[in-house]
Parts: sequence; C-alpha cells; structure tokens
Amino acid sequence: MKGSPVEIYDTFAEAWTLEVSRVLLTAMTAELAMGAAHQFAGAAGSSMIGSRLNAGIERAAAPHETPDNRPGVFVSMAHVPDSREALLKEIELRVALASLVPTVTIFDAAIPGVTTVSINIHDKFAMSKERWAEKDTERAAAGRVMCVVPTTTGEFLYEKTLKISVDGTDGHFVCFAVNAASAVAAILAAKEAIVAVDGVAPMGYGLEQVFRELDYIPSLRTQVEDSKIPEGVESVLNLLMFGASADVMAKAMGLSLNAAAQVPGVVALTAMNFGGQFGKHKYHLREVMQ
Amino acid sequence: MKGSPVEIYDTFAEAWTLEVSRVLLTAMTAELAMGAAHQFAGAAGSSMIGSRLNAGIERAAAPHETPDNRPGVFVSMAHVPDSREALLKEIELRVALASLVPTVTIFDAAIPGVTTVSINIHDKFAMSKERWAEKDTERAAAGRVMCVVPTTTGEFLYEKTLKISVDGTDGHFVCFAVNAASAVAAILAAKEAIVAVDGVAPMGYGLEQVFRELDYIPSLRTQVEDSKIPEGVESVLNLLMFGASADVMAKAMGLSLNAAAQVPGVVALTAMNFGGQFGKHKYHLREVMQ
Amino acid sequence: MKGSPVEIYDTFAEAWTLEVSRVLLTAMTAELAMGAAHQFAGAAGSSMIGSRLNAGIERAAAPHETPDNRPGVFVSMAHVPDSREALLKEIELRVALASLVPTVTIFDAAIPGVTTVSINIHDKFAMSKERWAEKDTERAAAGRVMCVVPTTTGEFLYEKTLKISVDGTDGHFVCFAVNAASAVAAILAAKEAIVAVDGVAPMGYGLEQVFRELDYIPSLRTQVEDSKIPEGVESVLNLLMFGASADVMAKAMGLSLNAAAQVPGVVALTAMNFGGQFGKHKYHLREVMQ
Amino acid sequence: MKGSPVEIYDTFAEAWTLEVSRVLLTAMTAELAMGAAHQFAGAAGSSMIGSRLNAGIERAAAPHETPDNRPGVFVSMAHVPDSREALLKEIELRVALASLVPTVTIFDAAIPGVTTVSINIHDKFAMSKERWAEKDTERAAAGRVMCVVPTTTGEFLYEKTLKISVDGTDGHFVCFAVNAASAVAAILAAKEAIVAVDGVAPMGYGLEQVFRELDYIPSLRTQVEDSKIPEGVESVLNLLMFGASADVMAKAMGLSLNAAAQVPGVVALTAMNFGGQFGKHKYHLREVMQ
Repeated sequence: MKGSPVEIYDTFAEAWTLEVSRVLLTAMTAELAMGAAHQFAGAAGSSMIGSRLNAGIERAAAPHETPDNRPGVFVSMAHVPDSREALLKEIELRVALASLVPTVTIFDAAIPGVTTVSINIHDKFAMSKERWAEKDTERAAAGRVMCVVPTTTGEFLYEKTLKISVDGTDGHFVCFAVNAASAVAAILAAKEAIVAVDGVAPMGYGLEQVFRELDYIPSLRTQVEDSKIPEGVESVLNLLMFGASADVMAKAMGLSLNAAAQVPGVVALTAMNFGGQFGKHKYHLREVMQ
Repeated sequence: MKGSPVEIYDTFAEAWTLEVSRVLLTAMTAELAMGAAHQFAGAAGSSMIGSRLNAGIERAAAPHETPDNRPGVFVSMAHVPDSREALLKEIELRVALASLVPTVTIFDAAIPGVTTVSINIHDKFAMSKERWAEKDTERAAAGRVMCVVPTTTGEFLYEKTLKISVDGTDGHFVCFAVNAASAVAAILAAKEAIVAVDGVAPMGYGLEQVFRELDYIPSLRTQVEDSKIPEGVESVLNLLMFGASADVMAKAMGLSLNAAAQVPGVVALTAMNFGGQFGKHKYHLREVMQ
Repeated sequence: MKGSPVEIYDTFAEAWTLEVSRVLLTAMTAELAMGAAHQFAGAAGSSMIGSRLNAGIERAAAPHETPDNRPGVFVSMAHVPDSREALLKEIELRVALASLVPTVTIFDAAIPGVTTVSINIHDKFAMSKERWAEKDTERAAAGRVMCVVPTTTGEFLYEKTLKISVDGTDGHFVCFAVNAASAVAAILAAKEAIVAVDGVAPMGYGLEQVFRELDYIPSLRTQVEDSKIPEGVESVLNLLMFGASADVMAKAMGLSLNAAAQVPGVVALTAMNFGGQFGKHKYHLREVMQ
Repeated sequence: MKGSPVEIYDTFAEAWTLEVSRVLLTAMTAELAMGAAHQFAGAAGSSMIGSRLNAGIERAAAPHETPDNRPGVFVSMAHVPDSREALLKEIELRVALASLVPTVTIFDAAIPGVTTVSINIHDKFAMSKERWAEKDTERAAAGRVMCVVPTTTGEFLYEKTLKISVDGTDGHFVCFAVNAASAVAAILAAKEAIVAVDGVAPMGYGLEQVFRELDYIPSLRTQVEDSKIPEGVESVLNLLMFGASADVMAKAMGLSLNAAAQVPGVVALTAMNFGGQFGKHKYHLREVMQ
C-alpha cells in the first residue's frame, strides 16, 4: 500500500532538558473534561516564539484511571529549567481558568519513576486569599490534599501540591514528503502513536511547520546555502513533543516514527540537531525505531 | 460533589450467551478509521427489534497496537448462537461495505484466552468470485493471511479467517435518575469506562432506553402493576453492552457501574433479570463493583 | 500554496433518479443527536453492493432550525424508484432503532420546492400494534402529527407521515491524485463543502473508493484495456452523494469540486459516465464549477 | 418531554462595551483548521481573572464561505476598549502561534454593518522584521492584502489589516437547575444555538461557573445574605459570550435562552445585572426570547 520504502536518516534529534508538570482534569462527562483541557492547554504551542508556556493534551483518561472515577484528560506543561517561576505562574493562572468549567477537578498526575520537586502552588501563590476570598476549604481525597472551592454548579477541586519532573525533555523529528497532504497525514498518524506513552504530549498542536529553519523550507531551496531538502520533497513537517523523562521520550520517538513511515508520499524521516553540543539528549532515529 | 449517596440494589443482571466477533479496522488516519467503523457498525443497536446485527465501536487503537502500525478502531459484533449464519452473512456484507472507505484494512482482533471457532469468510462466501471478480490476491502479513483487493486508492486488505468467541455474553444495568439529563450523563460516563476493557463494546449507541419493559417507564407508574420506579425517579436508562467472555464483562460491569454512580442526580443503580432462569450469566452488582 | 493547476476534464457525471427521504433527529444534546444519527444512517454506504439503504448524515442543525428548539442532525435516505417498498421498510426499522437512543425525536425534513409523495409510515407498518403494544398516543406539535411513545427516559416522538422526494438524484465526481493522502484530503474537503447545501448528503461515508471500475484502478493500469489513469496518478477517489433534486445536486457538485481543487497533489477532476444513455441527469463539471 | 415549565425572570443582562476582532482560519482540512483554532483561542476564558484575552471559537466555515475555498473556523477575540493595545499584542502573538500549524491561512472576518477601526498588525508590530526575518512577501488575494511567509510545508498567509468592532458587547444569562447534569446539558444546548449567529462566540468554553458571585452559589445559600438561589435549585450555570454588536447579541441571547429552556431539570432562567448603572447594554430576557 505504501509504494517505495521510506529512508530513515542516520542521525539524531537533539533535545533539551525541560521541567514538566502533568495534571489530570476530570469532569462529569468526557466532553466537559476535553473542553477544560483545551482551555487549560491552549495558546501554548512553543515558548520560543513568545507563548508563556509549552503545553499539550496527552489523551483521554477512562474513569477507572482517575482518583474520582470520572472521565478525564491528561495534560502536560513544560518550560526550560531557568523559567520555573514562569511555568508555575502560568500553571496557577490556568488552574484559575479551569475553575470556570463546570464540575472540573484537577489532580497531579506525575508519572512514577521520575525525579520531581513538589510545589504547593496553592500556598505559593496565596490562592486562598488572591483567588477564592478565603472561602475555600481543604479535603483529603485518595491520599491527596485538595483545595475545595464552592462554585455555582457545586465545587471546584484541585490538588494543592503539584510535582515537577526535573528530568523532562523535548522530542521531535522531521518528515520529508512529496506534498502537504502526505506530510500532514504522516505527522497526524505519528501524533496518534504517542497517545500510547504516558508522560509524553504534543507541544501545542504538535504538527509544527517552522519558519526559522530556512534550510528546511522547500521554496527557498535555491535561495539558501546548504538547503537540506532533496529533490522531490515539497513539504516538510515536524512532530514536536515533550515528555517527563528521556525513557518515555525514546519510546514515543520510536512509535511515532514507525507510524509516520506508513503513510503514502513520505520520502524520508530525519531530525534536527546542532551536532549534539547543546542538548543533553540525543535520540538516534534508527535506534528508537527498533 | 455528588450530594446524596447512590443506592446499589442487591440484585443481578441476567445475561445470555452470545457469539462475538471482534475486528480491528486500520486506515491511513484515525479519522478514516473512525469513519469506516461507523459505517461498519451502524444500524446495529439491538437485534431484538429487527436489526440484523448487534454491533458496537469499542475504542480507537494506537498505531503500535495494530499489525500495520496505523491508527485503528476496534469493532465488535454479536448474535445469539442459533443465528451464527446470520451473523457471518452480515459480517461479510459489512466487510464489503468497508471496502469502499479508502485505505482501510480489516484484521481479526479476537481477545486471547477465549474459546473460539475460526471461519474463513473469504471462502465461505466465495468472496473472490462474488465480490472481487477474481482480481484479488493473497498476502501473508504479520502471520495473517490477508485477501488483497486492488482499489482505486490502492488496496483493500482483510483477514480471510475471523474467529468467533462462543463464550460471549451481553451485559447491562439500569440507572434510576431524577431526570433525563442525569440519566444520560451517568450512562455516558459509564460508557467511557468500558473503553478500558478489551473485548467489551456498547451495543449500538449503548445508551438504551426501552419501550418494552413497561414496569420501568416512569410515566406509566400508575398505569401498570408492579411498576419498578420509586418516587422521585423520572428517568431510567440502561447501559447495554456485550463482550467476548464473562470475565471481561464482569470487569466492564464493575467499572461502568462505579462511573455511573458519580453523576449528580443518580438515585439508584439496578439491573433487569428474570429470576435467573433464562440467562447463563448472572452479574451481581455489588460483587462486580468491588 | 497549490503548486500546479488542477485539470478539470470536459465531461459530466451521469446520475440516476432516486427517491429521497430527509429527516431531522433532535435530542437533548448535540452529542445524543449525532449518536442517534450514526445509528440511524449506518451500514448504508451503497445499496449496489448489498446494503439495504443508501443513507448519509447531512449536517448538524442548530436549535432554532428545529421544531422543538433542540440540537439536531439532518439525515437523508435514498433508494431507486423501483425499491420504494424496501426504502420504507428500512426507514421503519431505523425509526424503531432510533427509539432506543434517549430523548430523540424524529421530524420529517423534506426540503421545499420538490415534488413529494407523503407516506404515513406509522399506519402503513401498523407500528402502534407491531412496535408499541398500542401504548402510543398522538400529539400535534408545530403543525405536525407526532406519534408519542412512552419510554424509560421520557418519551420518543416521531412524525407519522414522511415525505419522499421523487425527483432525487445521485451525484459524484472523481479525483485523480498523486497519492492516497492527497486524494483523501481533497475528498474530505469536498465533503465539507456539501454541508452548505440543504438536501444533499454523502452516501455513507461519502469518500468512496471502488473496486468495480477496473479502468480506474491505478495498479491495474497495465493489465486492463482503456485504463483511464494518466501518468503520475497513483490514487483515485470518488465523492459519492445524493440529493433531493437536481438543482441542489448541481450546486453541491460545484461547491465540492471547487473545494477538492484546492488540495496539494490533486492532478485532475473528472467524473464517471456511460455516455449519458442511462442516467436522467448530467452534471457537467465545468458548468457546475462556475 | 419537559415536565414543568421554566420560569423566565423579568430581568435583564447588563453588558459592557467590548472591542471585538473576528478572524477566519482556513486550512487544507477541517481537522487542521479546528486544531489551529483551539491553539489560537486557547487559555482565553475570561480576562477578568487574569487571562490576556477573551476569545472563543464561533463555528466551522464551509469551503464556499471562505476566500480560498478551503474548510475553516471562525474565531473571535475581545477586550475592553481601554485595553486595545493589549488585545492587539495578544492577537499578534496568536497569529505567530498559528503560523506553526501546517497549511493555515488567516483572514479578517469582521461582520458587515458594524463600526470598525482597521489596524495593520503586520506593520504595527514590525512583523516582517521581528517575526519573519524579512523573508515574507505580499500578495493580493480576493481583494485582500496578505502577508506570505514561506514555511516548511508551503506558505503561511495572513491578512495584514484586521478590523476591530468598537460596538462589541458581552452577553450572558444564568440557568437555575436541579443539578449539575441539567445545568450543563442546558448551557451546552444554548451554546449550540449561538452557532447560528455570525459574530457571536462563547467566551472561552462558554459554560461558566463562577466563584465570585457568592449569592449565586447554592452551597453558600445559608451563609450569605441575599442568596439568589431558590429552593430546589442545586446548580447554577452561566452561558458567557461576546459579539460584534448589540444586534447580533440580542439575537444570540434569544436563541440560546430558548434552547436552554428545553432541557429537563431547568427550573428558571435569569441574568446578572447591577441595576443597569454600569453596562451600556441591557438584554431583557423576555424581550429577546420573543
């Protein structure tokens, strides 16, 4: 079904260290939980061009996976280590925004086996005074300490203390395709694949075309030196993601690359790097695809 | 968040033996796979009122779960044992209908650990001659024998032999609620819960109101003898599902009952039975909810 | 954005006369209405290969468009004139199946300005006796005569008399593309376009690859005489639709062809015909695209 | 189907003047356009609690409604008049974020008949230099002046000049219901209704529970003076929206109130006001519902 085979470049994705927070939003229905997740994770595609947060929707959670037995959605957020304060401040804002969506509860959902620091955002930002006019109370639920805010539909709950993985990382690869239809279908399939890896989320929408890397722009092929674009490639698209650890990211890289390789019109899969001098992590495509 | 507690009746759901076939439809994109699944499983809510099939969409499959590394959807179909021929004939029609949706492939997806019979539907219904004008070929893929039909977009593949579980069963419970909004939200949440159990699907849309059981109709409370509807209950809704074995069904019953119990306005959870004389299976609510 | 221009063949789609029924399913929420629509219109992609009905989901209806001010979905069904009895019988079954989905009501939604015959399906199929044990009542609502069936969640209503357009028609065109990703994206965009034309629905999923037309199968290019497939075309996909009149179909053909022409990798747009001897309708591509 | 009638309070919603910008995001497929819209309009539920923007997704656009004949999504953004600079700056950021989503184009989509000011955001924010390293070009398309940025998948286009309605307004009403399931279903149906009014969008997710209005919180009924919550009401939910003019908002208020009134468990519909001293606009519920 796939005509010619896809070339896998013998190269690696160079990735940075990120600090990553992962939460679970639950609600009365799956539709409400997804609505809240879009609100919570929006406008957060890439902090490099000015958004205040990197964030993404990971996947829906079935009721038995959640502490309150309700449908949910996993959402992750990330920032570079130097910007931890900015990350926390933006998370605090988004918790407050999520308080508007009826029936929502927010739990910490850090994956196990990762080095984390715990931050009580409720206290740090004096949310009781600044946000809730001291009308909030505290309740223990499933071994967690929840802030309980009375609302017009009932209550809004959130876990006071969130964990931040200090071993997070981004991940990415590049799809060379004959046209945009193939590039988009391939990276959409790749994005479906990472749903299987807890702790890894797309960064924003995940399918990311870039302007900044001029050597990857087909229409500038003859105008820039050292264009990376081979003959026959008219469209190039990245899957951009991030995760709570290098282990989960390596797995997500492998699954997503293998999925992208199945789509007609994909010519080659490669990845961006800067020789490995800058990023702590190197994900070799041929290794992670095994 | 949930005001008053939900009463769980000390009773059981009485369930019949069903023959169940489970397939996996894969496609180039998740959107195409879901489109094919709706086509494949449609108009199949309840054979008791005249549909030719009981069928339901189970869940999306991530690429790494599928033999061809593409996004997919699990779909199950069922019939009473006496109607195996009708079940197979309808499956054959739906395979042919699925051949219209571009890039689709159909794999058998019987869950492990279940007693099955294998049926080569390709041969049984002479599909090569009757459907494909003998233009089809055969290809081995991932240890499976696939029929390959050339199509306008490429190829349509399906696994020639499907397995039928002979240990299948239906499952169901009844939600008593203060109104339709609560009943619907509760059974939607319950339906989300069964996504977690491979081998269990909603029957049709899954949320099933019935006309036939007059003693469960609130507006007939005073017109029928032995109405089952307590005071304060104005809406009653069933989750109707089926699965490949009693084990998976018991698990699905438990998860879905626990999810339904979280929704505001749910008064009680119960189940229909006929004293246990007819159905082979009995799912006791309080047991499966543990 | 679209590299090379798309060739529009100077040809026409040959279309048959169909009888078409159009209904509106409303429910408490948009999600329930769409669930009912999938149930109602499923397994109905193409009666030519054995399904009992041609049917498709047209579009969602906003509450103010519906007689009961609730969210809804327009669904259409069709059959060849000789098969009116089969069409009606299948509609009756699907009305009964829709009765299972909570809060659903079914209204006739024939578009104005079309020649119709009116059929009281309630009486014709003795539904009161055969389906509802004579527990149903009648109610006038918004100038319509509704059958009211008490159900476990409240009531199921359907309009007793449906109108059948006798001037219906199918519609279709063929997209030649460089690969399946382009063909699928183009026909998906085309399908989005027909949402704008009341009275026109996709037939089943709408994106239809076919096996029967061997001269349109790229992989058989060298094996069949008179292959229609030009060099460079590796994937061919149809948009298959039907509508209540030739007027609405001509409009839908134009809008959908223009939408398909915007997608990268589309080489040409054409249509199937048999010289115009068989079908009553001829939709000339270049005319309808004006 | 709706037991007891819904009480409509004889009161009005008091609304402020807002400045509103409306854009149309188009893409190769409807799925991409919606992904871009979520990215573009995210984290923008309510500027009153700290988000940098009020924004919402209005509805999908069919290809024939868009200047480039592709599927699209209408998105609106708003701010109080004093914050025009903040609004424009945030729009500039979100245009840049949208540039990451493959195949996206952004058009101004101001509705006709409204007083607007035109702002060339491209020039105002020196986007050519600050964002695109002066690699962008200009192209006239459909009577519009577009900025064309070469990207890895092809091109990103946006209209350089956006119009801002200076006659915008918010809109809102309050649903009193027996529980959260009813309140949510009612306001979801109401949100479906405003899809029919061009120029009106939900603010963020639209279904807004609030913490700040203590007299509307059922659980504080006995703790605050002058609680507005009648007996039997356990859940209260707002539909919060905004629009480009008072005319379109009055229409949207009427349609959405009528839709909410159909849902079981809704007790009354009312609206918040402060006596009419502050807001320029008054939407009387009983008038707009006519």
